[in-house]
Amino acid sequence: MKVYMEQGILQENARQAEENRALFGKTLVVNLIGSPGCGKTTLLEKTLAALGKEFRMAVIEGDIYTTKDAQRIEACGVPVVQVNTAGGCHLSAEITARAAADLDLADLDILFIENVGNLVCPAEFDLGEDCKAAVLSVVEGDDKPAKYPLLFREAGVVVLNKCDLLPYTNFNMDSALADLQGLNEKAPVLQLSAAREEGLEPWYAWLRRAAAEKKA
Amino acid sequence: MKVYMEQGILQENARQAEENRALFGKTLVVNLIGSPGCGKTTLLEKTLAALGKEFRMAVIEGDIYTTKDAQRIEACGVPVVQVNTAGGCHLSAEITARAAADLDLADLDILFIENVGNLVCPAEFDLGEDCKAAVLSVVEGDDKPAKYPLLFREAGVVVLNKCDLLPYTNFNMDSALADLQGLNEKAPVLQLSAAREEGLEPWYAWLRRAAAEKKA
Repeated sequence: MKVYMEQGILQENARQAEENRALFGKTLVVNLIGSPGCGKTTLLEKTLAALGKEFRMAVIEGDIYTTKDAQRIEACGVPVVQVNTAGGCHLSAEITARAAADLDLADLDILFIENVGNLVCPAEFDLGEDCKAAVLSVVEGDDKPAKYPLLFREAGVVVLNKCDLLPYTNFNMDSALADLQGLNEKAPVLQLSAAREEGLEPWYAWLRRAAAEKKA
Repeated sequence: MKVYMEQGILQENARQAEENRALFGKTLVVNLIGSPGCGKTTLLEKTLAALGKEFRMAVIEGDIYTTKDAQRIEACGVPVVQVNTAGGCHLSAEITARAAADLDLADLDILFIENVGNLVCPAEFDLGEDCKAAVLSVVEGDDKPAKYPLLFREAGVVVLNKCDLLPYTNFNMDSALADLQGLNEKAPVLQLSAAREEGLEPWYAWLRRAAAEKKA
């Protein structure tokens, strides 16, 4: 019975996601997905600061409760819409459409959607984005791509964050990279530390290329 | 509509959870919940090794895919039942009942259930356990209790893991402890590092007390 219900939700979500895609027009939309505390908000903060003169950007912040992340993003001086799911474990295309209505989309180059911190459910829900960015903190362990494959299979780019902490973990990079390659040979895997601002250039280069392709 | 469906699922789950509680009898059942990579499996490995002569223990391992965690637990020499949810983001009372049927419950002092790595959904589903143990890695950040309050509100004990990495993070312990206290003033908060085997004694003492209370 549960399966039928979820199919109903997913079908309705897919319909709304197509509407969102039309609405987003030439704006690049990146859906950031990862566990609680993997560093999605910090990655956004650094990106908004670094690319603020190049691109017109905005953020939809998904959280279950609180506006902690939206406050951090607002301090970066870009438009931000907070969505509280009040218990819900992921954003949906419908929630995204409502949040996007508060933004001037024609005036944006890049819209980031920071999903609820969760490596599982958000991957199932298309929000109408161009690309899912999977964010994994290396402190979570090298086994996570194999254990939570859907997100990594669907991702257009994979960010391995907190690489400055590698010396203090038993994270096996070769093993993680092999699993990621097995799941998804197309997505680039970017090793960086957002908090330490190390290795961010390839991420910025990826965003520039994706934004240019969307405009073309 | 989604709310109604979830209520249906939760009501059916609650009914099965009560059946499980009767089935578990005098066995202490601990439901370990936390994000991917917060250290649930490592905490179990250390616990099984340390308390193996005191208690008869078993583990139900919940994962979306793979048997990686069950293999680690099996190496500890205790009975383990792997449950793969094949995409599902949490265990349910029904899945737990099926897994428990493979164990000799009358012969157990403590049954650990390691839930799917997820700080959100597992907290909503009563499995018939005596206690939810919330596991949070300090690398996830001090804001997580406030952002994901349900689990911390429901927990009988909170484990702050990977405390050996505190010097490399901006985790504010006072702030986290204040938020935890605000959400749940009863649950003890245990600061430890399972991987480094530091601070585990209060966790073992908590388990001993809980197991004795259950037997009484």
